[in-house]
Amino acid sequence: MKIAIFGAQGTIGQAISKELGQRHEVIAIGRNSGAHQADMADIASVRTLFQQIGKVDAIIAVAGQVHFGPLADMTPEQLNIGLQSKLMGQANLVLLAREVLNDGGSITLTSGVLTDDPIRFGAAASMANGAIEAFARAAAIELPRGIRVNVVSPTVLQESMDSYGPYFRGFVPVAAAKVAQAYSKSVEGAQTGQVYKVF
Amino acid sequence: MKIAIFGAQGTIGQAISKELGQRHEVIAIGRNSGAHQADMADIASVRTLFQQIGKVDAIIAVAGQVHFGPLADMTPEQLNIGLQSKLMGQANLVLLAREVLNDGGSITLTSGVLTDDPIRFGAAASMANGAIEAFARAAAIELPRGIRVNVVSPTVLQESMDSYGPYFRGFVPVAAAKVAQAYSKSVEGAQTGQVYKVF
Repeated sequence: MKIAIFGAQGTIGQAISKELGQRHEVIAIGRNSGAHQADMADIASVRTLFQQIGKVDAIIAVAGQVHFGPLADMTPEQLNIGLQSKLMGQANLVLLAREVLNDGGSITLTSGVLTDDPIRFGAAASMANGAIEAFARAAAIELPRGIRVNVVSPTVLQESMDSYGPYFRGFVPVAAAKVAQAYSKSVEGAQTGQVYKVF
Repeated sequence: MKIAIFGAQGTIGQAISKELGQRHEVIAIGRNSGAHQADMADIASVRTLFQQIGKVDAIIAVAGQVHFGPLADMTPEQLNIGLQSKLMGQANLVLLAREVLNDGGSITLTSGVLTDDPIRFGAAASMANGAIEAFARAAAIELPRGIRVNVVSPTVLQESMDSYGPYFRGFVPVAAAKVAQAYSKSVEGAQTGQVYKVF
């Protein structure tokens, strides 16, 4: 398979590349890094990218920003960062799926544990994550040609505990390599409309 | 209690007003109808409204637009209609809660069955609904002074089957009066961070 990974240079992106790169052609995409550059939040930028790399068998997204901060100070503009970056960036890939995926191809998006299990400062992330999961369930029933879409919802990573640990007390972290297995299940399996919770 | 209802003139809004109006002061708010006008999607407009009506004990939102249409034709701009209207309109009320609610007050938002149970043409609604539910769960743990937030997720209404029936085949519709009971539970009960599914 030919697999495009948006956010390939992140901690999860690297673990996915290592896992799937053993048996597939992996194309690393980043906003400023990787073999190819594209801004997921700009659908024209993503369309241009696929004109360069051609059709693929799978798209994986592990990218996108959200604002973290106390609800008491949060503004509509800060909530919209997550909506336009993490949410619409990933939604744009779904909107483009029928143009850029081969028959039976798949899209795998990324939400996170905060959909189900909120923390202080995380309301904007919860909002974007909940939207991603519900959108994927809905898109799954309208995609043509056997194209599938799933979501991986990881909890906090072992590799990120030095920086994020204080915000996630009591959450049991998982290794990025274990999270990568859920992407493998989505890409190499046959299910659609699923949220794979890795927590 | 003094209860502000955004979308009071809609089918559910009228049923809520009938139920809660028996025992509370209900203030009807609409974009173009009701006793007071405000555009939920514009936080400044909502702030101005509360300067006029004063602090309240409960806010209910049953308003907001989303685009309905086939995923194949959907654009980022169409997805953003639901994000800016139904989602951010309701989120703005949560952001303003500490300014405009009395101690122990509540906010009750509205999502819908499409979070869990998608239909053709409904991907934008599913997206907005999933975001509302996850955001409310997160906001619930950061609100001060005993302020609560819940979501009601109604299925298709009996009263709407003439127009929406063809899109919701196999969904068992419920009466708006039954949906109104879930808002009563949220406003007059003591729970927070809940999604009351009326389906």
